[in-house]
Amino acid sequence: MTVTTPAGFEAAGVAAGIKANGHRDLALVVNRGPRFDAAAAFTTNRCQANPVRWSRQVAADGRVDAVVLNSGGANCYTGEQGFQTAHATAEAVAEQVGVSAGDVVVCSTGIIGHQLPLDKLVGGVSAAAAELSADGGSLAAEAILTTDTVAKEVAVRHPDGWSIGGIAKGSGMIAPGMATMLVVVTTDAVIEAAELQQALDEAVRHTFNRLDVDGCMSTNDTVTLLSSGASGVSPAHAEFVARLTEVCDVLAAKIQDDAEGASHTIDIEVQHAADEDDAIEVARAVGRSNLFKTAIAGNDPNWGRVLAAVGTTQAAFDPFDIDVTINGTRICHAGQPDRDPATVDLTSRAVHVLIDLKSGETTGMVRTSDLTHEYVEINSEYES
Amino acid sequence: MTVTTPAGFEAAGVAAGIKANGHRDLALVVNRGPRFDAAAAFTTNRCQANPVRWSRQVAADGRVDAVVLNSGGANCYTGEQGFQTAHATAEAVAEQVGVSAGDVVVCSTGIIGHQLPLDKLVGGVSAAAAELSADGGSLAAEAILTTDTVAKEVAVRHPDGWSIGGIAKGSGMIAPGMATMLVVVTTDAVIEAAELQQALDEAVRHTFNRLDVDGCMSTNDTVTLLSSGASGVSPAHAEFVARLTEVCDVLAAKIQDDAEGASHTIDIEVQHAADEDDAIEVARAVGRSNLFKTAIAGNDPNWGRVLAAVGTTQAAFDPFDIDVTINGTRICHAGQPDRDPATVDLTSRAVHVLIDLKSGETTGMVRTSDLTHEYVEINSEYES
Repeated sequence: MTVTTPAGFEAAGVAAGIKANGHRDLALVVNRGPRFDAAAAFTTNRCQANPVRWSRQVAADGRVDAVVLNSGGANCYTGEQGFQTAHATAEAVAEQVGVSAGDVVVCSTGIIGHQLPLDKLVGGVSAAAAELSADGGSLAAEAILTTDTVAKEVAVRHPDGWSIGGIAKGSGMIAPGMATMLVVVTTDAVIEAAELQQALDEAVRHTFNRLDVDGCMSTNDTVTLLSSGASGVSPAHAEFVARLTEVCDVLAAKIQDDAEGASHTIDIEVQHAADEDDAIEVARAVGRSNLFKTAIAGNDPNWGRVLAAVGTTQAAFDPFDIDVTINGTRICHAGQPDRDPATVDLTSRAVHVLIDLKSGETTGMVRTSDLTHEYVEINSEYES
Repeated sequence: MTVTTPAGFEAAGVAAGIKANGHRDLALVVNRGPRFDAAAAFTTNRCQANPVRWSRQVAADGRVDAVVLNSGGANCYTGEQGFQTAHATAEAVAEQVGVSAGDVVVCSTGIIGHQLPLDKLVGGVSAAAAELSADGGSLAAEAILTTDTVAKEVAVRHPDGWSIGGIAKGSGMIAPGMATMLVVVTTDAVIEAAELQQALDEAVRHTFNRLDVDGCMSTNDTVTLLSSGASGVSPAHAEFVARLTEVCDVLAAKIQDDAEGASHTIDIEVQHAADEDDAIEVARAVGRSNLFKTAIAGNDPNWGRVLAAVGTTQAAFDPFDIDVTINGTRICHAGQPDRDPATVDLTSRAVHVLIDLKSGETTGMVRTSDLTHEYVEINSEYES
């Protein structure tokens, strides 16, 4: 159940020698048609990596034939040489796979500010092209990992005969306001590019853009959605969006669960908000509070830190009529202490925080994780 | 050199039994006149502690005769009972010191969501009133500490015969957008309340509001400025603002230096910004990047993480014409690698990051610190 589950796709993942440790570091996903509709979403960070600059142009016309992804280097802030590297990688794919370079999306992930070794990229593309297979999705998923500890893949099959599959990488530098992390999603449903883009935008908004591991927005994030049309089935738009959202949500949850150093996943749900923006603004403020995230790391249901974060937002609420419930125990009612926080069970990995704003009818959720010693360890030693 | 350095002020710091460890936990600063002009600045967090709710009313008329401060509990989200506790504390001060309760600012700091023990507060106020002295500033500075490791005090004397002194507490839950942390500043200069407020707003904007330890905004922050007029000297406004800013800046630097778990202080300076807002927005975005802060904790001059944070802002800049210099070594020039990051010396505690936006003539700086294992340790164990 991966990116090659939908008919019409082949993939591969190889060790191109970009990563010093010899792990797989180059992935290729190819659409064999008969259709080549595509959509993409990119980071909204104004400092964009060279592969993003390249791939924006590629995806603009709604056709993508292949996606090549490397770990081991972000190719960001590498100047004109870095852009040429991205372009040359696409040319190598074009030559090996028999497509046009202008239809090849390039994605990179890793350290910013280092040139990628073009010779190794080109060698890796040749090796990957030779290994392309309809069973290759899992190796591709493995080849895009950086600080991730597990490969992330998923697929859903619709009873009508079409399916959606996907792979993702991401465990740090994850914050919303973009299409987060590197993701390739495929489908064999027959859908035109414009409708694909509409569906992707909607799915991303409700999934990847509600994931916030550390409030740090990446320069490289790219989500590419490819449709081969190989099933011959044209699903209803709403049905497709629902299934696509499901796939993206599973991948987002896998990224949340693999967040750097996390000992708890934290779902922050805001209910009775005036509107969706309010719900997400409040949930995000709490999800970005280092004090709240360290408290959860220490198994401390510190609702004071929840309210301190809520108070920084512009959402509609009465500061003295908010309830906070953690893992089912309401410990703050109407802005005052309620049940004893000592009765909250925080031993499970999954933590659910429910904030009741009592100001409307909308519910929204942001996924985050706790801030642990291990997060500091990983990110203070990443470069060396 | 402390809050009692200016003539006309007395202070005390006692152990009232609010803190379980028996440390000093209640401070009193009293203005003995002849004038009683005052100004104050409070947190902009919408979830405000009861002492803030009380003290806003007190300071509104430009007269404050005394400030009572306790550590060991924030008296925030403690409902009507908590507001009555703040009021009753002011009444106790009024009775013991011979002033009106309506002229007594109350400040609290510590855990949110616990009722303060009123009997211990009242007992502490009696003890402190009995020990009030013109040498008591340092004991007051000690009594307001929480996770702080050192007392923070300062004073400057002007050749014309007036002075400004201050004390502060704060080491975590520190972010701008407010009058940060608990601070009492005194002066014996003759200045009317309205001018004091103007001077305080200006000084706070350039000092405490440019301090960002962890991006977490407190519910209790209060800066109170008291003028006794005891020197009989009326300084020029610009001169007073300059000296007041100097005092606030020293206190802000002391808080930065005592930031929870910090192994580096980090001054983030942005130059050639289009305007002050741009400079501060960019500096703040970098100062709040957990990835950048953990990199510095690991002695890693990771300029890619600097630019990734800069890219999240709306400031005027060309992403491909930015320079980044760390501790004097320019490691990114025009958005590309410059000198070898390995040559950057990060062994000193003080780190200076200089970001050149090349978009104007304005410079601005934000003070922050690194994100370490010890920050996680302190904040995951604070409640227990």
